[in-house]
Amino acid sequence: MLIVMNQNATPQEIQAVVATIEANGYTARPIPGGERVSIGILNNKGPIDADAFLGLPGVKEAVPITRPYKLVSRESQMEDTIIHVGDVVIGNGHLTLIAGPCAIESETQAMTIAKLVKQAGAQIFRGGAFKPRTSPYSFQGMGLEGLKRLAKVRETTGLPVVTEVMDDETFDLVEEYADIIQIGTRNMQNFSLLRRAGKARKPVMLKRGMAATIDEWLMAAEYILEGGNSAVILCERGVRTFVNHSRNTLDISAVPVVRKESHLPIIIDPSHAGGRRDQVIPLSRAGVAVGAHGLMVEVHHTPEKALSDGAQSLYPHQFETLCHQVRAIFDSFKEQ
Amino acid sequence: MLIVMNQNATPQEIQAVVATIEANGYTARPIPGGERVSIGILNNKGPIDADAFLGLPGVKEAVPITRPYKLVSRESQMEDTIIHVGDVVIGNGHLTLIAGPCAIESETQAMTIAKLVKQAGAQIFRGGAFKPRTSPYSFQGMGLEGLKRLAKVRETTGLPVVTEVMDDETFDLVEEYADIIQIGTRNMQNFSLLRRAGKARKPVMLKRGMAATIDEWLMAAEYILEGGNSAVILCERGVRTFVNHSRNTLDISAVPVVRKESHLPIIIDPSHAGGRRDQVIPLSRAGVAVGAHGLMVEVHHTPEKALSDGAQSLYPHQFETLCHQVRAIFDSFKEQ
Amino acid sequence: MLIVMNQNATPQEIQAVVATIEANGYTARPIPGGERVSIGILNNKGPIDADAFLGLPGVKEAVPITRPYKLVSRESQMEDTIIHVGDVVIGNGHLTLIAGPCAIESETQAMTIAKLVKQAGAQIFRGGAFKPRTSPYSFQGMGLEGLKRLAKVRETTGLPVVTEVMDDETFDLVEEYADIIQIGTRNMQNFSLLRRAGKARKPVMLKRGMAATIDEWLMAAEYILEGGNSAVILCERGVRTFVNHSRNTLDISAVPVVRKESHLPIIIDPSHAGGRRDQVIPLSRAGVAVGAHGLMVEVHHTPEKALSDGAQSLYPHQFETLCHQVRAIFDSFKEQ
Amino acid sequence: MLIVMNQNATPQEIQAVVATIEANGYTARPIPGGERVSIGILNNKGPIDADAFLGLPGVKEAVPITRPYKLVSRESQMEDTIIHVGDVVIGNGHLTLIAGPCAIESETQAMTIAKLVKQAGAQIFRGGAFKPRTSPYSFQGMGLEGLKRLAKVRETTGLPVVTEVMDDETFDLVEEYADIIQIGTRNMQNFSLLRRAGKARKPVMLKRGMAATIDEWLMAAEYILEGGNSAVILCERGVRTFVNHSRNTLDISAVPVVRKESHLPIIIDPSHAGGRRDQVIPLSRAGVAVGAHGLMVEVHHTPEKALSDGAQSLYPHQFETLCHQVRAIFDSFKEQ
Repeated sequence: MLIVMNQNATPQEIQAVVATIEANGYTARPIPGGERVSIGILNNKGPIDADAFLGLPGVKEAVPITRPYKLVSRESQMEDTIIHVGDVVIGNGHLTLIAGPCAIESETQAMTIAKLVKQAGAQIFRGGAFKPRTSPYSFQGMGLEGLKRLAKVRETTGLPVVTEVMDDETFDLVEEYADIIQIGTRNMQNFSLLRRAGKARKPVMLKRGMAATIDEWLMAAEYILEGGNSAVILCERGVRTFVNHSRNTLDISAVPVVRKESHLPIIIDPSHAGGRRDQVIPLSRAGVAVGAHGLMVEVHHTPEKALSDGAQSLYPHQFETLCHQVRAIFDSFKEQ
Repeated sequence: MLIVMNQNATPQEIQAVVATIEANGYTARPIPGGERVSIGILNNKGPIDADAFLGLPGVKEAVPITRPYKLVSRESQMEDTIIHVGDVVIGNGHLTLIAGPCAIESETQAMTIAKLVKQAGAQIFRGGAFKPRTSPYSFQGMGLEGLKRLAKVRETTGLPVVTEVMDDETFDLVEEYADIIQIGTRNMQNFSLLRRAGKARKPVMLKRGMAATIDEWLMAAEYILEGGNSAVILCERGVRTFVNHSRNTLDISAVPVVRKESHLPIIIDPSHAGGRRDQVIPLSRAGVAVGAHGLMVEVHHTPEKALSDGAQSLYPHQFETLCHQVRAIFDSFKEQ
Repeated sequence: MLIVMNQNATPQEIQAVVATIEANGYTARPIPGGERVSIGILNNKGPIDADAFLGLPGVKEAVPITRPYKLVSRESQMEDTIIHVGDVVIGNGHLTLIAGPCAIESETQAMTIAKLVKQAGAQIFRGGAFKPRTSPYSFQGMGLEGLKRLAKVRETTGLPVVTEVMDDETFDLVEEYADIIQIGTRNMQNFSLLRRAGKARKPVMLKRGMAATIDEWLMAAEYILEGGNSAVILCERGVRTFVNHSRNTLDISAVPVVRKESHLPIIIDPSHAGGRRDQVIPLSRAGVAVGAHGLMVEVHHTPEKALSDGAQSLYPHQFETLCHQVRAIFDSFKEQ
Repeated sequence: MLIVMNQNATPQEIQAVVATIEANGYTARPIPGGERVSIGILNNKGPIDADAFLGLPGVKEAVPITRPYKLVSRESQMEDTIIHVGDVVIGNGHLTLIAGPCAIESETQAMTIAKLVKQAGAQIFRGGAFKPRTSPYSFQGMGLEGLKRLAKVRETTGLPVVTEVMDDETFDLVEEYADIIQIGTRNMQNFSLLRRAGKARKPVMLKRGMAATIDEWLMAAEYILEGGNSAVILCERGVRTFVNHSRNTLDISAVPVVRKESHLPIIIDPSHAGGRRDQVIPLSRAGVAVGAHGLMVEVHHTPEKALSDGAQSLYPHQFETLCHQVRAIFDSFKEQ
C-alpha cells in the first residue's frame, strides 16, 4: 500500500502517518516526490486495510499495490487447476459443454432434454431444483423432487449434473445429489454459504455477482479454497450496466484477466448474459473464442411452455448448431 | 403485458401468440397500429412472465405494464407505514437518526460511542456483531459476544439497537438481541433469509443491493411482507456505477420514487454510499432534503483504530455537526 | 406508443389524454385492462415524444413501441449494406482487418508500421492526424502533416486509410486525404459533425459513444444517412461500466443486435475496449466469433515509445498471430 | 506515478523500466517491498502517460499518483472562483437559481415563462436556441431567431440569459447574444469547442458528460482555462447507470468532491437528472443541501405542449414551491 499525502501536508502529518504504520507492525518508507510525499508500507503479510490511513490529516489517497487474494492467485499456484467430474475434465486444454433446462419441471421434461443435449454434444447436464426467484409468487423449483429427477438423469444418461444450492439448510441434500454444486449470482457474497462450500466434497461452480469486480469474485472463491475445497469453477454470466438490449452485459474480458490472475477454470453462461434466445449462439461463440474453458447453456424442448427463463432457452436443434460452431472455433484456434 | 409483433409478422404468427395467451388463461386483445400489431394481455392476476412470449415467431418485444409487487405497493395501501421501536418512531413526519460503529469491538468501545451519539441526537444505536467481509482474512465480528454488548448498550443508554443478520443459523440469536434486524446489501436477494425475516417478530431493515433496481428491491421486501412481517424499513446505501470518486453512487432519486410507489419508510446510509469521511455530512444533508425518513451513520471515537470501515466513520464532533445541520434542514423544509 | 394510466385514474383524466393525443393528429385507442386502462397511439409517422404525455394527470408511464430510427433500420432495407473502399469490401460475408498506430508520428513510423501490418494481413491502414485528448497538455497529433503521411502510405502500400475528423473546420481536409472518415466516441452525438458527414463523399466509420445505447448510436447514424451518405460503418469500442479490469467493457452483444436491427456493417475495436495489450488478441477472437464484419486494431513497432496509446498497441508479431487466429475462426464458423 | 512490478520480475526487467523512466527525463526510485518491487517516478512536470510503461516486460500496473489537472485545481488556486454576470453572483456563499424552458419556442412563450420564473425567484433565464437532439427528425431549435428572443427577454426583464452553443460555426453568434455560454453534455469532450470557449469573453457553463469521471470533466474545464477563460461554471446533470427509474442518476457526491478538488463553482441540473417532473423538486432540495452553488431548472407554463422536454418541465407554481424550499434549506444550513 502506498499512502499519498497532500501537497501541503506538514512534516508533523507525515510523521503521524509513519507512526501509525509502525504501530500496526509494518515498515514505513517515505518517498519524497516532485510535488508531494508518498509513504510506502512494507513487510505486510496479506492485504492492508486502507481505512486506517485514509482518515488521517494530510492523507490524500491510499493506493493498494498487492492483490487481496492468495490461494486463488496464479502467483501461489502456477499451473492451471484441472477438475475431474466422472469422465469429464474441466480446465485448460478442454472445452466443456453444460446444458439443460433452467428448472427441472418433471421427469419427462428432464429426461427428454437430457437425451437431446447429450446427443448434441453436452457433457454435463444442468437443471435447477431450488430456484432463486425475484418474486415470491413465481415458481420456486421442485426442491428434493427435482434433485431426485437429476439423479435419475445421471443414472440413465451417464451425464454428471450441476444444480444450484440456495442455503445452508438444503446444502447437505444438494451435495448428496449433485456432481457440481452451483452458487448463484445473488449468493456470490453469501459468506455463510461460501464457508459451507469450502467444506463440501464436490466441485463448486461460483457464478459472478451482478456487480462484482474480479477482485471480489476471486475473494469469494478464496473463501471456498480457504475452507479446504480447491475445486472451484468460475462462471461469468454478465454484469449489470446501462446497456438495455441484453439482460446483462457479458464481460468477455473477464476471461483473459481471470486466466492471468488465477489458476481456476472459467466458463461462460451466455443464456443469462443475453437473456434472449437470438443472442445465445453468438455469445457462445465469443465465449469460446475469448478462451473460456466451457459454456453453460439453457436448453428446453418446448421453451414457450417453460416455467422459467423460456425466452432465453434454446431449442434442441439450436443447441446442436451451437455445439458444432463452438467446437469448430475451439479447434481452429487451438491449432494456432 | 403488451406483446409487440414485428412489422412483417404474419397473421399465423399473430394467431399463435393469441392462442398462447389464451392457453395461459388470460385474455388476448390484438391492437392493430400504423406499422405493426401489438397484443394486450388482460385479466391476469399478478405479473406475467415475458419469457413465455419473447421466443415466439414474429414477436419483437414484451412490454410489462403493471408492477410486479403487490403488498409493498402504495396501490395496495395508501397510508404510510409507521414503525415503532420502543419510543422511537420511523416513518412519515419523523426524522430518525441511527448511529454507531461499523462493528462492535469491545464493551468500552460500544458504550463510549453509544453515549456520544445519543448526546449528539441519535435515537437508535447501530453496531455489527456478524460482519460480511469481502476477505476471509478480515475481522469477521465478535458474534454472540457482540450481541451481548449491544444488549448492554440498550440497557444502559435506553437506545434501541440495530444489527445485521447474515444467515438462517444465527437468525434466532440476532432476533433475540436486536430491536431492528438488518439484512445487508449482499443478502438483499438471499431468499431463504428473506423468508425467515418474514416470520420475525422484529422490524427488518432491508438494504438495497449494490446493483438492484427498485423493482427488485421492493420485490425482496415483498418476500418479507408476504411472510407475515409488515414492519420493513428500506435503506438506500448507494449503487455501483462507473463513478470512482465515491465508494458507491448514492441514488438520491430512489427516495421520491420509493415514496411514490410504496408505503414503506426509507432511510439513507451516507457512510457506505460515500465511503470517505468528508462526503458523509454533505450526503446526509442531501438525504434528508430529498425526503428520506432517517439516516444511518457510522461513527467511531477513534476511527483510525477501527477494525473496519474506519475511513468512512465520523468523529463524534462531526456527527454532532451532522445532527444540527440535518435537523435544521428537516425543519426548514417541513414548514414549507 | 402506449400510455399507461394509474389504477385510480378518473374517466376525466383518461379523456384528457385521449384529447391530447388527438390534438396532436394521432388516433387514440383506449385499452381497458384488468387493473388499469392503457391508451394506444396509432397513425403516427415516426417516433412520438413521450414528454407530451408523461406529465398529464393520471398518467403512469409512456411506453415506446416502435423504434425511433428509419433509414438505418433493417425494416427499411432488408439486404446488408456492403461498402467498397478501393478493392476492399466491408460487410456481410467479408472480414476486414484494419490496423495501424494510434497516431501518425513521422513518415518513417507510419511507413514501417504500414508495411508490417499489410504483410500480416491488414487490408486498411489506420492512423490519427487530429487526436482528441483528455488533456490539453498531451500530444494532439500532427494535423495536416499527418494526413500527408497517410497519403504517402496509401501511395506506397496500396492500403486505403482511415483517420479521425474532429471538427467542421478540418473536415474538408480530412475528407480530401482519407478513404474512410472516422467519427470518434466523444463526437458520436456531435450533431453538426454528423450533418457534415452526411454530405461527405467518403464512407464514415461511426464509433459508439462511451455510454450510448444502441438506439442512440443508430440515431446518430440516421443523421448521416438522412444527410445523403449511406456508407456508414459502425464500430463498437467498449462502453463505460463499473468494471475496472479493462479500460472499457466490450459490449459483444451489440453485434447480433445491430445486425438484426440494421443493415449497416459493424466492426470491433478491441484496442480501446481492453486498453491493455494482453486483452487485445482474446477480444479480437471474440469479436470475430460473435459476428463482426471486421476489426480495427492498434499496432506499433515500438509501442513503448509511442506518443499515445502505447499500452494497448500490439507488437507487429502479435498482430500476425491475431490475423491467423481470427481468419481461422472466421473460416471455421462460416462453414457451419 | 508508481510502476508496480510482478512478484517474479527479474533484475533485468526492473533495470529496463528504470532505464525507460530515465530516458524520458524523469528520476526513477525503486522501492523494494515485501512481495515485489515498485518504482516511483519523480521530477515529472504534469501527468505522465502510463502507456509507456504498462507494456514493458515484468510490469504489473502503473498507478497514477498526482492529479492530471493544473489550472482548475484547488492546489493551484486556494480561493473559490466567483463569477459575476450583471448583478448576479455565482460561487461560494451564494445560491443562484436559473430557470426557463428547454427550448425557446416563440417570443410569447419565452416572455411569459421569464416573467413567471423571475417573480418566483430565478436570477438567470435559460432557453435553448440551438438544440442537440438524438433524432434528426425532432425539433432542432429556432436558431438565431431564438437568440433574438433571448435578447428581448433580457431587455425586458433584466435577467441575464444562458443558452447552449453546439458548434464553432455558430459560436460567435451565441457569444454575442448570451450572458453565459452553455456547453452541453454531449459536447463535454468536443475539444475544438472547448478551445473556442477558452477564447470567449463570456462565462462558460460546462455540463458533465453522461459517463465522464470527475477527472475528465475537470480536464475539459482545463482546456477552457488554459485557453484564457477562467470563468467556468460546472454543472452536474446526472450520469448514466443501470438505474432505470430516473432518466439519469444524479451524482450528488460530485459536489463535495469538486468543491474539494477545484475552485470552480458547481451547480445542479435536477431536470435532466430526474427526467420526470415529480423528481425535480426533491432533487433540487438535495442539490442545494449537498452544497451546490445553484440550480438550473426547466420550467414551462404549458409543459404538455412543450416542443421538447415537457415531461420534466415544472409548472410555474411548482417552481415557486421549489424556490421557497431551497432558499429555506440554503439558509438553514448556512447558519450552522
